[in-house]
Amino acid sequence: MSIETYLPFWQKLTPTQRETLSRAATTHRVQRGTIVHNGSEDCVGLLLIVSGQLRAFILSDEGKEITLYRLLSRDICLFSASCMLNSIQFDISIEAEQDTTFYKIPTKVYHHLMQESAPVANYTNELISARFSDVMWLMDQILYKRLDSRLAAFLLEESALTGATELKITHDAIARHLGSAREVVTRMLKYLHSEGAVTLSRGSITIADEKKLRGLAQESLR
Amino acid sequence: MSIETYLPFWQKLTPTQRETLSRAATTHRVQRGTIVHNGSEDCVGLLLIVSGQLRAFILSDEGKEITLYRLLSRDICLFSASCMLNSIQFDISIEAEQDTTFYKIPTKVYHHLMQESAPVANYTNELISARFSDVMWLMDQILYKRLDSRLAAFLLEESALTGATELKITHDAIARHLGSAREVVTRMLKYLHSEGAVTLSRGSITIADEKKLRGLAQESLR
Repeated sequence: MSIETYLPFWQKLTPTQRETLSRAATTHRVQRGTIVHNGSEDCVGLLLIVSGQLRAFILSDEGKEITLYRLLSRDICLFSASCMLNSIQFDISIEAEQDTTFYKIPTKVYHHLMQESAPVANYTNELISARFSDVMWLMDQILYKRLDSRLAAFLLEESALTGATELKITHDAIARHLGSAREVVTRMLKYLHSEGAVTLSRGSITIADEKKLRGLAQESLR
Repeated sequence: MSIETYLPFWQKLTPTQRETLSRAATTHRVQRGTIVHNGSEDCVGLLLIVSGQLRAFILSDEGKEITLYRLLSRDICLFSASCMLNSIQFDISIEAEQDTTFYKIPTKVYHHLMQESAPVANYTNELISARFSDVMWLMDQILYKRLDSRLAAFLLEESALTGATELKITHDAIARHLGSAREVVTRMLKYLHSEGAVTLSRGSITIADEKKLRGLAQESLR
Protein backbone atom coordinates (compact mmCIF):
# COMPACT_ATOMS: atom_id res chain seq x y z
CA MET A 1 0.00 0.00 0.00
CA SER A 2 1.25 3.46 -0.83
CA ILE A 3 1.57 6.20 1.77
CA GLU A 4 -1.55 8.05 0.62
CA THR A 5 -3.78 5.41 2.20
CA TYR A 6 -2.29 6.30 5.61
CA LEU A 7 -2.76 10.03 5.35
CA PRO A 8 -6.39 11.23 5.50
CA PHE A 9 -5.35 14.70 4.30
CA TRP A 10 -3.93 13.37 1.01
CA GLN A 11 -6.85 14.61 -1.10
CA LYS A 12 -6.37 18.11 0.30
CA LEU A 13 -2.73 18.39 -0.75
CA THR A 14 -1.55 20.15 -3.88
CA PRO A 15 0.11 17.99 -6.57
CA THR A 16 3.49 19.45 -5.57
CA GLN A 17 2.94 18.61 -1.91
CA ARG A 18 1.95 15.05 -2.82
CA GLU A 19 5.03 14.61 -4.91
CA THR A 20 7.29 15.99 -2.17
CA LEU A 21 5.80 13.56 0.34
CA SER A 22 5.99 10.56 -1.97
CA ARG A 23 9.61 11.26 -2.81
CA ALA A 24 10.68 11.85 0.77
CA ALA A 25 9.03 8.74 2.24
CA THR A 26 11.29 5.73 2.71
CA THR A 27 10.46 2.16 3.77
CA HIS A 28 12.10 0.51 6.77
CA ARG A 29 11.98 -2.83 8.51
CA VAL A 30 13.21 -3.14 12.09
CA GLN A 31 13.52 -6.21 14.26
CA ARG A 32 11.63 -6.80 17.45
CA GLY A 33 13.47 -5.08 20.30
CA THR A 34 14.83 -2.19 18.20
CA ILE A 35 14.66 1.22 19.85
CA VAL A 36 13.09 3.24 17.04
CA HIS A 37 13.17 6.55 18.88
CA ASN A 38 15.13 7.49 21.96
CA GLY A 39 13.83 10.56 23.78
CA SER A 40 15.47 13.79 22.72
CA GLU A 41 18.45 12.02 21.16
CA ASP A 42 16.91 11.71 17.71
CA CYS A 43 14.04 13.07 15.67
CA VAL A 44 13.85 10.79 12.66
CA GLY A 45 10.39 11.63 11.39
CA LEU A 46 6.78 10.55 11.19
CA LEU A 47 6.37 6.77 11.01
CA LEU A 48 3.42 5.20 9.18
CA ILE A 49 3.16 1.64 10.46
CA VAL A 50 2.59 -0.92 7.72
CA SER A 51 2.80 -3.97 9.98
CA GLY A 52 4.10 -4.84 13.42
CA GLN A 53 3.79 -3.15 16.78
CA LEU A 54 5.49 -0.20 18.48
CA ARG A 55 5.47 0.60 22.18
CA ALA A 56 5.91 4.11 23.57
CA PHE A 57 7.32 4.38 27.08
CA ILE A 58 8.95 6.79 29.49
CA LEU A 59 11.97 6.14 31.62
CA SER A 60 12.71 7.61 35.04
CA ASP A 61 16.18 8.85 36.02
CA GLU A 62 16.63 5.53 37.81
CA GLY A 63 15.75 3.49 34.73
CA LYS A 64 12.19 2.59 35.72
CA GLU A 65 9.87 2.25 32.72
CA ILE A 66 6.17 2.59 32.13
CA THR A 67 4.33 1.84 28.89
CA LEU A 68 2.29 4.81 27.64
CA TYR A 69 0.59 3.30 24.59
CA ARG A 70 0.99 0.91 21.69
CA LEU A 71 0.83 1.63 17.97
CA LEU A 72 -0.31 -1.01 15.51
CA SER A 73 -0.64 -1.43 11.76
CA ARG A 74 -2.06 1.73 10.09
CA ASP A 75 -1.24 3.88 13.14
CA ILE A 76 1.03 6.87 12.83
CA CYS A 77 3.89 7.51 15.21
CA LEU A 78 4.26 11.24 15.75
CA PHE A 79 6.63 11.36 18.72
CA SER A 80 9.55 10.21 16.61
CA ALA A 81 9.18 13.69 15.06
CA SER A 82 8.31 15.53 18.27
CA CYS A 83 11.22 17.98 17.92
CA MET A 84 9.09 19.86 15.39
CA LEU A 85 6.77 20.87 18.25
CA ASN A 86 8.51 23.38 20.49
CA SER A 87 6.10 22.88 23.34
CA ILE A 88 6.73 19.15 23.75
CA GLN A 89 8.92 19.26 26.86
CA PHE A 90 9.21 15.57 27.63
CA ASP A 91 11.03 12.55 26.26
CA ILE A 92 9.34 9.42 25.02
CA SER A 93 11.14 6.30 23.84
CA ILE A 94 9.72 3.99 21.20
CA GLU A 95 10.56 0.33 20.83
CA ALA A 96 9.50 -2.23 18.25
CA GLU A 97 7.60 -4.92 20.18
CA GLN A 98 7.31 -7.02 17.04
CA ASP A 99 9.26 -6.99 13.78
CA THR A 100 7.87 -3.81 12.28
CA THR A 101 7.68 -2.32 8.80
CA PHE A 102 6.98 1.39 8.36
CA TYR A 103 7.19 4.30 6.00
CA LYS A 104 9.22 7.19 7.32
CA ILE A 105 8.54 10.82 6.39
CA PRO A 106 11.52 12.94 7.50
CA THR A 107 10.69 15.49 10.22
CA LYS A 108 11.81 18.45 8.10
CA VAL A 109 9.55 17.51 5.20
CA TYR A 110 6.51 16.92 7.40
CA HIS A 111 7.15 20.05 9.46
CA HIS A 112 7.37 22.19 6.35
CA LEU A 113 4.12 20.70 5.03
CA MET A 114 2.39 21.30 8.35
CA GLN A 115 3.41 24.96 8.29
CA GLU A 116 1.84 25.56 4.91
CA SER A 117 -1.17 23.24 4.96
CA ALA A 118 -4.06 23.71 7.40
CA PRO A 119 -5.41 20.17 6.76
CA VAL A 120 -2.01 18.68 7.67
CA ALA A 121 -1.73 20.85 10.80
CA ASN A 122 -5.27 19.92 11.86
CA TYR A 123 -4.57 16.26 11.28
CA THR A 124 -1.46 16.60 13.45
CA ASN A 125 -3.67 18.16 16.12
CA GLU A 126 -5.81 15.05 16.11
CA LEU A 127 -2.74 12.80 16.32
CA ILE A 128 -1.41 14.65 19.38
CA SER A 129 -4.87 14.66 20.94
CA ALA A 130 -5.19 10.92 20.45
CA ARG A 131 -1.88 10.26 22.20
CA PHE A 132 -2.80 12.78 24.91
CA SER A 133 -5.99 10.78 25.45
CA ASP A 134 -3.99 7.55 25.77
CA VAL A 135 -1.84 9.14 28.44
CA MET A 136 -4.86 10.54 30.31
CA TRP A 137 -6.39 7.07 30.33
CA LEU A 138 -3.17 5.74 31.84
CA MET A 139 -3.08 8.58 34.38
CA ASP A 140 -6.59 7.67 35.44
CA GLN A 141 -5.52 4.04 35.84
CA ILE A 142 -2.48 4.95 37.92
CA LEU A 143 -4.38 7.36 40.14
CA TYR A 144 -7.59 5.53 40.66
CA LYS A 145 -7.07 1.84 39.91
CA ARG A 146 -5.46 -0.72 42.12
CA LEU A 147 -2.48 -2.59 40.70
CA ASP A 148 -4.45 -5.84 40.47
CA SER A 149 -6.99 -4.10 38.22
CA ARG A 150 -4.24 -2.63 36.07
CA LEU A 151 -2.56 -6.05 35.81
CA ALA A 152 -5.86 -7.67 34.81
CA ALA A 153 -6.41 -4.97 32.16
CA PHE A 154 -2.86 -5.44 30.88
CA LEU A 155 -3.24 -9.22 30.53
CA LEU A 156 -6.51 -8.75 28.61
CA GLU A 157 -4.86 -6.21 26.31
CA GLU A 158 -1.90 -8.52 25.67
CA SER A 159 -4.27 -11.35 24.89
CA ALA A 160 -6.19 -9.14 22.44
CA LEU A 161 -2.94 -7.99 20.76
CA THR A 162 -1.51 -11.48 20.35
CA GLY A 163 -4.82 -13.25 19.75
CA ALA A 164 -3.88 -15.96 22.26
CA THR A 165 -4.91 -16.81 25.83
CA GLU A 166 -1.41 -18.08 26.64
CA LEU A 167 0.91 -15.11 27.09
CA LYS A 168 4.66 -15.61 26.77
CA ILE A 169 5.82 -12.76 28.91
CA THR A 170 8.05 -12.54 31.96
CA HIS A 171 6.98 -10.99 35.27
CA ASP A 172 9.84 -8.54 34.83
CA ALA A 173 8.52 -7.36 31.46
CA ILE A 174 5.03 -6.88 32.93
CA ALA A 175 6.53 -4.86 35.78
CA ARG A 176 8.21 -2.59 33.23
CA HIS A 177 4.95 -2.07 31.37
CA LEU A 178 3.12 -1.13 34.54
CA GLY A 179 5.88 0.89 36.15
CA SER A 180 5.99 -1.55 39.06
CA ALA A 181 8.49 -4.02 40.54
CA ARG A 182 8.85 -7.68 39.56
CA GLU A 183 8.17 -8.94 43.10
CA VAL A 184 4.92 -6.98 43.23
CA VAL A 185 3.78 -8.38 39.88
CA THR A 186 4.65 -11.94 40.95
CA ARG A 187 2.60 -11.50 44.12
CA MET A 188 -0.35 -10.08 42.16
CA LEU A 189 -0.20 -12.91 39.61
CA LYS A 190 -0.33 -15.43 42.45
CA TYR A 191 -3.41 -13.63 43.72
CA LEU A 192 -5.03 -13.76 40.24
CA HIS A 193 -4.11 -17.46 40.13
CA SER A 194 -5.73 -18.09 43.52
CA GLU A 195 -8.87 -16.37 42.22
CA GLY A 196 -8.91 -18.75 39.27
CA ALA A 197 -8.47 -15.94 36.75
CA VAL A 198 -5.12 -17.17 35.37
CA THR A 199 -2.90 -20.23 35.48
CA LEU A 200 0.85 -19.80 35.79
CA SER A 201 3.65 -21.89 34.35
CA ARG A 202 7.32 -21.32 33.68
CA GLY A 203 7.63 -18.49 31.13
CA SER A 204 3.93 -18.09 30.47
CA ILE A 205 0.63 -16.94 31.90
CA THR A 206 -2.65 -18.37 30.65
CA ILE A 207 -5.98 -16.59 30.94
CA ALA A 208 -8.27 -19.15 32.57
CA ASP A 209 -11.35 -17.03 33.25
CA GLU A 210 -11.65 -14.00 31.00
CA LYS A 211 -14.91 -12.85 32.56
CA LYS A 212 -13.39 -12.83 36.02
CA LEU A 213 -10.38 -10.92 34.72
CA ARG A 214 -12.69 -8.33 33.10
CA GLY A 215 -14.47 -7.86 36.39
CA LEU A 216 -11.17 -7.29 38.18
CA ALA A 217 -9.97 -4.88 35.48
CA GLN A 218 -12.95 -2.64 36.14
CA GLU A 219 -12.50 -2.30 39.88
CA SER A 220 -11.21 1.00 41.15
CA LEU A 221 -9.70 2.35 44.37
CA ARG A 222 -12.17 3.32 47.06
CA MET B 1 -5.40 45.09 26.05
CA SER B 2 -7.11 43.84 22.91
CA ILE B 3 -7.23 40.17 21.96
CA GLU B 4 -4.55 40.49 19.28
CA THR B 5 -1.82 40.73 21.93
CA TYR B 6 -2.79 37.23 23.15
CA LEU B 7 -2.73 35.56 19.76
CA PRO B 8 0.73 35.16 18.19
CA PHE B 9 -0.84 34.28 14.83
CA TRP B 10 -2.68 37.62 14.56
CA GLN B 11 -0.31 39.05 11.94
CA LYS B 12 -0.87 36.00 9.76
CA LEU B 13 -4.65 36.38 9.62
CA THR B 14 -6.53 38.01 6.77
CA PRO B 15 -8.40 41.25 7.56
CA THR B 16 -11.69 39.30 7.39
CA GLN B 17 -10.43 36.68 9.84
CA ARG B 18 -9.28 39.42 12.24
CA GLU B 19 -12.62 41.11 12.10
CA THR B 20 -14.49 37.85 12.69
CA LEU B 21 -12.34 37.12 15.75
CA SER B 22 -12.64 40.63 17.17
CA ARG B 23 -16.42 40.64 16.78
CA ALA B 24 -16.89 37.17 18.26
CA ALA B 25 -14.72 37.73 21.35
CA THR B 26 -16.55 38.68 24.54
CA THR B 27 -15.20 39.72 27.95
CA HIS B 28 -16.14 37.87 31.13
CA ARG B 29 -15.39 38.13 34.79
CA VAL B 30 -15.92 35.15 37.09
CA GLN B 31 -15.57 34.88 40.83
CA ARG B 32 -13.10 32.67 42.60
CA GLY B 33 -14.57 29.18 42.88
CA THR B 34 -16.56 29.31 39.62
CA ILE B 35 -16.43 26.15 37.53
CA VAL B 36 -15.57 27.62 34.14
CA HIS B 37 -15.65 24.33 32.25
CA ASN B 38 -17.11 21.03 33.33
CA GLY B 39 -15.80 18.02 31.43
CA SER B 40 -17.94 17.08 28.45
CA GLU B 41 -20.94 19.03 29.68
CA ASP B 42 -20.00 22.27 27.98
CA CYS B 43 -17.67 23.56 25.30
CA VAL B 44 -17.82 27.32 25.68
CA GLY B 45 -14.72 28.30 23.72
CA LEU B 46 -11.12 29.40 23.92
CA LEU B 47 -10.39 31.57 26.96
CA LEU B 48 -7.67 34.24 26.85
CA ILE B 49 -6.85 35.02 30.47
CA VAL B 50 -6.51 38.74 31.17
CA SER B 51 -6.03 38.40 34.91
CA GLY B 52 -6.60 35.82 37.61
CA GLN B 53 -5.88 32.10 37.80
CA LEU B 54 -7.53 28.96 36.45
CA ARG B 55 -6.95 25.41 37.62
CA ALA B 56 -7.46 22.34 35.41
CA PHE B 57 -8.25 19.10 37.19
CA ILE B 58 -9.66 15.65 36.65
CA LEU B 59 -12.20 13.88 38.78
CA SER B 60 -12.48 10.14 39.40
CA ASP B 61 -15.82 8.32 39.46
CA GLU B 62 -15.60 8.48 43.23
CA GLY B 63 -15.07 12.26 43.27
CA LYS B 64 -11.32 12.23 43.90
CA GLU B 65 -9.56 15.18 42.27
CA ILE B 66 -6.07 15.88 41.05
CA THR B 67 -4.76 19.20 39.73
CA LEU B 68 -3.29 18.89 36.24
CA TYR B 69 -1.99 22.43 35.70
CA ARG B 70 -2.66 26.11 36.33
CA LEU B 71 -3.24 28.91 33.84
CA LEU B 72 -2.31 32.48 34.65
CA SER B 73 -2.60 35.91 33.07
CA ARG B 74 -1.81 35.81 29.30
CA ASP B 75 -2.26 32.02 29.16
CA ILE B 76 -4.84 30.50 26.85
CA CYS B 77 -7.30 27.87 28.00
CA LEU B 78 -7.92 25.41 25.18
CA PHE B 79 -9.72 22.61 26.97
CA SER B 80 -12.85 24.70 27.40
CA ALA B 81 -13.10 24.25 23.61
CA SER B 82 -11.87 20.65 23.50
CA CYS B 83 -15.02 19.38 21.77
CA MET B 84 -13.56 20.76 18.52
CA LEU B 85 -10.88 18.04 18.71
CA ASN B 86 -12.45 14.65 17.99
CA SER B 87 -9.53 12.74 19.43
CA ILE B 88 -9.71 14.27 22.90
CA GLN B 89 -11.32 11.38 24.75
CA PHE B 90 -11.12 12.62 28.31
CA ASP B 91 -12.82 15.16 30.51
CA ILE B 92 -11.09 18.03 32.24
CA SER B 93 -12.75 20.47 34.60
CA ILE B 94 -11.60 24.04 35.00
CA GLU B 95 -12.14 26.18 38.07
CA ALA B 96 -11.29 29.82 38.76
CA GLU B 97 -8.84 29.77 41.67
CA GLN B 98 -8.90 33.57 41.82
CA ASP B 99 -11.39 36.11 40.52
CA THR B 100 -10.60 35.86 36.82
CA THR B 101 -11.17 38.04 33.76
CA PHE B 102 -10.92 36.54 30.30
CA TYR B 103 -11.84 37.01 26.67
CA LYS B 104 -13.87 34.18 25.24
CA ILE B 105 -13.71 33.14 21.59
CA PRO B 106 -16.64 30.81 20.86
CA THR B 107 -15.62 27.26 19.91
CA LYS B 108 -17.37 27.40 16.55
CA VAL B 109 -15.56 30.58 15.50
CA TYR B 110 -12.14 29.31 16.56
CA HIS B 111 -12.72 25.88 15.05
CA HIS B 112 -13.68 27.38 11.71
CA LEU B 113 -10.58 29.60 11.74
CA MET B 114 -8.37 26.64 12.61
CA GLN B 115 -9.75 24.68 9.65
CA GLU B 116 -8.86 27.39 7.17
CA SER B 117 -5.67 28.83 8.64
CA ALA B 118 -2.44 26.82 8.96
CA PRO B 119 -0.90 29.32 11.40
CA VAL B 120 -3.92 29.00 13.72
CA ALA B 121 -3.86 25.19 13.48
CA ASN B 122 -0.13 25.14 14.19
CA TYR B 123 -0.54 27.45 17.13
CA THR B 124 -3.25 25.13 18.47
CA ASN B 125 -0.77 22.26 18.11
CA GLU B 126 1.64 24.11 20.37
CA LEU B 127 -1.12 24.80 22.92
CA ILE B 128 -2.06 21.11 23.10
CA SER B 129 1.60 20.13 23.27
CA ALA B 130 2.21 22.53 26.17
CA ARG B 131 -0.68 21.06 28.17
CA PHE B 132 0.45 17.54 27.21
CA SER B 133 3.88 18.46 28.63
CA ASP B 134 2.28 19.67 31.88
CA VAL B 135 0.49 16.35 32.24
CA MET B 136 3.63 14.35 31.47
CA TRP B 137 5.49 16.30 34.16
CA LEU B 138 2.72 15.39 36.59
CA MET B 139 2.81 11.75 35.48
CA ASP B 140 6.52 11.67 36.18
CA GLN B 141 5.89 13.13 39.64
CA ILE B 142 3.18 10.60 40.44
CA LEU B 143 5.19 7.64 39.19
CA TYR B 144 8.61 8.47 40.45
CA LYS B 145 8.34 10.98 43.29
CA ARG B 146 7.39 10.29 46.86
CA LEU B 147 4.40 12.18 48.24
CA ASP B 148 6.62 14.27 50.55
CA SER B 149 8.56 15.50 47.50
CA ARG B 150 5.34 16.30 45.65
CA LEU B 151 3.99 18.14 48.70
CA ALA B 152 7.22 20.15 49.01
CA ALA B 153 7.04 21.04 45.28
CA PHE B 154 3.38 22.02 45.66
CA LEU B 155 4.07 24.34 48.63
CA LEU B 156 6.89 26.04 46.71
CA GLU B 157 4.61 26.49 43.67
CA GLU B 158 1.84 27.95 45.83
CA SER B 159 4.31 30.33 47.42
CA ALA B 160 5.54 31.43 43.97
CA LEU B 161 1.95 31.93 42.73
CA THR B 162 0.83 33.98 45.73
CA GLY B 163 4.15 35.73 46.37
CA ALA B 164 3.94 34.91 50.07
CA THR B 165 5.63 32.46 52.41
CA GLU B 166 2.48 32.08 54.49
CA LEU B 167 -0.01 29.91 52.61
CA LYS B 168 -3.70 30.11 53.50
CA ILE B 169 -4.76 26.67 52.36
CA THR B 170 -6.44 23.76 54.10
CA HIS B 171 -4.99 20.25 54.27
CA ASP B 172 -8.10 19.08 52.47
CA ALA B 173 -7.48 21.46 49.55
CA ILE B 174 -3.87 20.28 49.27
CA ALA B 175 -5.04 16.67 49.25
CA ARG B 176 -7.36 17.49 46.34
CA HIS B 177 -4.53 19.10 44.38
CA LEU B 178 -2.27 16.10 44.88
CA GLY B 179 -4.91 13.40 44.45
CA SER B 180 -4.27 12.20 48.00
CA ALA B 181 -6.23 12.00 51.27
CA ARG B 182 -6.40 14.72 53.95
CA GLU B 183 -5.01 12.44 56.66
CA VAL B 184 -1.98 11.61 54.53
CA VAL B 185 -1.31 15.30 53.82
CA THR B 186 -1.61 16.17 57.53
CA ARG B 187 0.90 13.45 58.40
CA MET B 188 3.31 14.65 55.70
CA LEU B 189 2.99 18.28 56.85
CA LYS B 190 3.85 17.20 60.38
CA TYR B 191 6.91 15.49 58.97
CA LEU B 192 7.92 18.65 57.05
CA HIS B 193 7.35 20.58 60.28
CA SER B 194 9.57 18.20 62.27
CA GLU B 195 12.26 18.70 59.60
CA GLY B 196 12.04 22.46 60.14
CA ALA B 197 10.92 23.08 56.54
CA VAL B 198 7.51 24.57 57.46
CA THR B 199 5.65 25.87 60.50
CA LEU B 200 1.98 25.02 60.94
CA SER B 201 -0.79 27.06 62.45
CA ARG B 202 -4.57 27.00 62.26
CA GLY B 203 -5.59 27.62 58.65
CA SER B 204 -2.12 28.33 57.34
CA ILE B 205 1.26 26.84 56.52
CA THR B 206 4.42 28.96 56.53
CA ILE B 207 7.54 28.10 54.61
CA ALA B 208 10.32 28.28 57.21
CA ASP B 209 13.24 26.89 55.23
CA GLU B 210 12.85 27.24 51.48
CA LYS B 211 16.22 25.63 50.71
CA LYS B 212 15.31 22.54 52.71
CA LEU B 213 11.95 22.36 50.94
CA ARG B 214 13.67 22.60 47.54
CA GLY B 215 15.95 19.74 48.49
CA LEU B 216 12.96 17.61 49.48
CA ALA B 217 11.10 18.51 46.28
CA GLN B 218 13.91 17.07 44.21
CA GLU B 219 14.07 13.68 45.89
CA SER B 220 12.69 10.77 43.94
CA LEU B 221 11.63 7.21 44.65
CA ARG B 222 14.39 4.66 44.69
